[in-house]
Amino acid sequence: MSHTPRYAFLGPSGTFTEAALLALPEGGEVEAVPYPSVPAAFDAVRTGECEAAVAAMESSVEGAVTATIDELANGEPLMIVRELLLPVTFALLVRPGTPIDQVKTVASHPVAEPQCRRWLTRQLPDTRWETAASNADAARQVRDGVFDGALAGAFTAARYGLEVLADDISDTAAQTRFVVVTRPGRPTAPTGVDKTSITVGLRDNHPGELMEILEEFAGRGVNLCRIESRPTGEAMGKYYFFIDCEGHVEEERVGEALQGLRRNSGRLRFLGSYPRADRQAPSIRPGTTDAEFVEARDWLADVRGGNR
Amino acid sequence: MSHTPRYAFLGPSGTFTEAALLALPEGGEVEAVPYPSVPAAFDAVRTGECEAAVAAMESSVEGAVTATIDELANGEPLMIVRELLLPVTFALLVRPGTPIDQVKTVASHPVAEPQCRRWLTRQLPDTRWETAASNADAARQVRDGVFDGALAGAFTAARYGLEVLADDISDTAAQTRFVVVTRPGRPTAPTGVDKTSITVGLRDNHPGELMEILEEFAGRGVNLCRIESRPTGEAMGKYYFFIDCEGHVEEERVGEALQGLRRNSGRLRFLGSYPRADRQAPSIRPGTTDAEFVEARDWLADVRGGNR
Amino acid sequence: MSHTPRYAFLGPSGTFTEAALLALPEGGEVEAVPYPSVPAAFDAVRTGECEAAVAAMESSVEGAVTATIDELANGEPLMIVRELLLPVTFALLVRPGTPIDQVKTVASHPVAEPQCRRWLTRQLPDTRWETAASNADAARQVRDGVFDGALAGAFTAARYGLEVLADDISDTAAQTRFVVVTRPGRPTAPTGVDKTSITVGLRDNHPGELMEILEEFAGRGVNLCRIESRPTGEAMGKYYFFIDCEGHVEEERVGEALQGLRRNSGRLRFLGSYPRADRQAPSIRPGTTDAEFVEARDWLADVRGGNR
Amino acid sequence: MSHTPRYAFLGPSGTFTEAALLALPEGGEVEAVPYPSVPAAFDAVRTGECEAAVAAMESSVEGAVTATIDELANGEPLMIVRELLLPVTFALLVRPGTPIDQVKTVASHPVAEPQCRRWLTRQLPDTRWETAASNADAARQVRDGVFDGALAGAFTAARYGLEVLADDISDTAAQTRFVVVTRPGRPTAPTGVDKTSITVGLRDNHPGELMEILEEFAGRGVNLCRIESRPTGEAMGKYYFFIDCEGHVEEERVGEALQGLRRNSGRLRFLGSYPRADRQAPSIRPGTTDAEFVEARDWLADVRGGNR
Repeated sequence: MSHTPRYAFLGPSGTFTEAALLALPEGGEVEAVPYPSVPAAFDAVRTGECEAAVAAMESSVEGAVTATIDELANGEPLMIVRELLLPVTFALLVRPGTPIDQVKTVASHPVAEPQCRRWLTRQLPDTRWETAASNADAARQVRDGVFDGALAGAFTAARYGLEVLADDISDTAAQTRFVVVTRPGRPTAPTGVDKTSITVGLRDNHPGELMEILEEFAGRGVNLCRIESRPTGEAMGKYYFFIDCEGHVEEERVGEALQGLRRNSGRLRFLGSYPRADRQAPSIRPGTTDAEFVEARDWLADVRGGNR
Repeated sequence: MSHTPRYAFLGPSGTFTEAALLALPEGGEVEAVPYPSVPAAFDAVRTGECEAAVAAMESSVEGAVTATIDELANGEPLMIVRELLLPVTFALLVRPGTPIDQVKTVASHPVAEPQCRRWLTRQLPDTRWETAASNADAARQVRDGVFDGALAGAFTAARYGLEVLADDISDTAAQTRFVVVTRPGRPTAPTGVDKTSITVGLRDNHPGELMEILEEFAGRGVNLCRIESRPTGEAMGKYYFFIDCEGHVEEERVGEALQGLRRNSGRLRFLGSYPRADRQAPSIRPGTTDAEFVEARDWLADVRGGNR
Repeated sequence: MSHTPRYAFLGPSGTFTEAALLALPEGGEVEAVPYPSVPAAFDAVRTGECEAAVAAMESSVEGAVTATIDELANGEPLMIVRELLLPVTFALLVRPGTPIDQVKTVASHPVAEPQCRRWLTRQLPDTRWETAASNADAARQVRDGVFDGALAGAFTAARYGLEVLADDISDTAAQTRFVVVTRPGRPTAPTGVDKTSITVGLRDNHPGELMEILEEFAGRGVNLCRIESRPTGEAMGKYYFFIDCEGHVEEERVGEALQGLRRNSGRLRFLGSYPRADRQAPSIRPGTTDAEFVEARDWLADVRGGNR
Repeated sequence: MSHTPRYAFLGPSGTFTEAALLALPEGGEVEAVPYPSVPAAFDAVRTGECEAAVAAMESSVEGAVTATIDELANGEPLMIVRELLLPVTFALLVRPGTPIDQVKTVASHPVAEPQCRRWLTRQLPDTRWETAASNADAARQVRDGVFDGALAGAFTAARYGLEVLADDISDTAAQTRFVVVTRPGRPTAPTGVDKTSITVGLRDNHPGELMEILEEFAGRGVNLCRIESRPTGEAMGKYYFFIDCEGHVEEERVGEALQGLRRNSGRLRFLGSYPRADRQAPSIRPGTTDAEFVEARDWLADVRGGNR
């Protein structure tokens, strides 16, 4: 008897995260299971309740989704196996038939408000904005009569019996990056256009230590895609770093850089190597191809063995 | 007739930000004016409605307060003139007489919940948590009967006629860093134990560019306190950096580093030099004292003039 | 009554150095005064006996002329005001009428022998080579019957009544770089295609110190032309460095790099800025033009003054 | 039947190089064979005529012995198996009975003269100095009546029937570093206090390339003992580098640094790993011990295999 895989996501139904889950190649064949928070969704993977979880990682407007980052960095280990980019456009959802001049309160997740602020100021200057735990939750509360309008994806309307009063009201074209995480295992196979994610901490906080960490990458020709600093929680001024770099852990230059970090940093967690959603091929600097690493290793073995 | 200075803060009355404002040396002599958001509080300074604004910048547990950072980086320029560190401890506030087993819902700003999660899980395993725009706002809604409990500073209780059912319920000792901002002007006088804040962007996003930016500091012996990457909002993968470094813009090594950034980065905004709240004196590397910079400048002038 | 300037050179008459002196624009109008050694020629400038001295600095085949380098680094200060490149081709000089099979001994300065070794091995396999203090001195000794042949410039033949038995016998096309030195003064005016020479020592010999010195140049976009390490003479393993870099001390990027060295090295001697003999224009990296340095300085002044 | 090993050295008998050869542990049991030049001595090893050659590499006063360096860098490969340091003190050798006021000419290798210059100036102000191919050769010529005095080691006197007129006449305490070279083979076993010698060239002469080469060492905590730039002979301004670094090729940090050079430089020649004569133990930076390299390699294998 076949088993339908279960994928956890930040619910309730109707969130952008659910839309991301459904946009996966396997999206139509899995059971999408809503959880009230990112930690809860990740825990469902850890306990084996779900095979995978989908979570927002980063917004091109709002930046890092710190709940996701901190949970990957500090919780029981998980592994990123895929990323995807989704355009994020907001609509104003209301109870069917509500005229715009009756929209006195609008609710949304705090991330949504700044992205629609210009439209709101122009079209609804007197309306009060209120926070909700998620945009879908805002929609639910609109249905229940708590608020008059919700900022959410247009696709959320149907689920809560609402109607789209205005679509595409975001001030800027935004994208959100989502990741699919599973329990740790062998990384996904290299495709030649991959990305690797890690978290790394300073060892003793000496001056220039961050630069030394970056040099482990730069010295081997590994370009960084992104670096986020996050508090360790121990004390003000103590940080760890969340880093995405070009390449796959199976590649020599990436492997040697990670070994350098392993030797020279306070804590290092490998979070996965996976295909890049933007398909941007790396520019591999002369001297850092896999073939050159292998040739250099052979040369060293010959030197050590006296066989030159 | 004397004028009482007005200081803006993120209201309503009873927030940690108000507590920070009152903890300032001049706290007792200014009029504290609440605003509904950090941008609104900063705009009050920009328009001249208030002399200064107080805002949370960073939490030792939750990290950057991105609303403050982004507003300093992108809005009409302002200048940081002071920072202060405040321990943040949460209490559970309820309507007087409420027994703990009647607390079915607890509300707070999203930052508060993870800091009290362990206590909540242990003491109130079945209670539902809800978001509020601020902890003070949560307290207000407890007073109004919307929620049963609020996570907030104990000092908030009095303002809303609530009582402290449990104090010091945070899982870890947390600190929040607040800044006082004014309209731009001459930086505050150096004290010898200062910090400088800037935002800086990449010029053309070439490999290693972030490391070159850090090298402008390191090469002149200027230690970094903190670096945050934030999206520029233009596209996924485009960031700017918010940096706090040791030292004062009047110091030679800091001045030369900033000049290097001015030449070699895409955008640079000076956000202020101000006394360090933690009073941690900088370790100035040999070769980077002001006296050595001045001596080197004199030497160069002699070389150029042929007067050695 | 007009005065003819006197230029010192490594004699006797007939050396390549004299040929370099004569190749100077002013070569025809100065009195060329031979000295027995580079230190003696330089001392003649120091005492005022001569206006200038010409000395070989570097050979494209033999490398640094250490006598010149050490004398510039350690002796009473002098200043390089010009460099020139001369092709160096050797001829075999003999007493008139000598047949090649009568050439049993050949003498030259030690620098000449390796440059003609292939020719000597092929044409004069049984001939013995002997050192002489200079090639011209070898020619003199051939004239006096001490040796049978001399390796020297063809132009040397006439001065000693010798004949050119074979011309162009060098194995490779070699060039020698000569410098003209004067007493210290205001550097020559920038031409846009200049070079700057310095000597610099380590301050405390800590690991990576040489790299930090190079970073003073690299961080400001100043390319190195050449670096020589020379013993300080204090102990085995203690070195100072002789460096030629692109650009003129009047240029901002060079000036700031030199100031950095002045602050961060053990000893620094400016040896001159002068036009490049090879006319190879520098590639000035964006962010390091004089205009950008000036703009950055103005910006910093505005920041410090509160005038942005 | 036992075979006496033959060791080549720069002759004639009585040179400092011969003294170095005799100072070797095996010095008393080998046949010392003089050769007229360093290349000739090295060729004797290459052809198998001798088992090893001893050559001066560097003087604490005069710097690199370029003949040795260039021959190691460019000739048929050889391997350094040992180094030793010898104090070098000069004596003035004369024919027995010669009074000091009869010393009108003094000869020596050009390296000797500057080391005795102060003594010569004070004691023999009117004496003329002449070059000789070696100090021993100068002694021979004194014996033959060509010169009156020779600057050489006191031990040279006996060989040429001369007497020491003045001993210890060097201005400074000098040391010379000698190396023993053999045909290439397996490097000598690590002792924990070793040194590794290489030559390395730039790949394409781009700005900052030398610094990148140095970074291959620095990034792995390998300290440099010495760097010499030497002309490639191709054109003025083209150099290769002779580098001595701390550590043994068998050590992980050295091996990885050499692999980095192999990938990122134009030409790399391994010249040997051998015990340091000065017994100065390396300071191995945390994160760069062999154990840490091994642990990092195991960790990477686990990550790649999915076995964390």
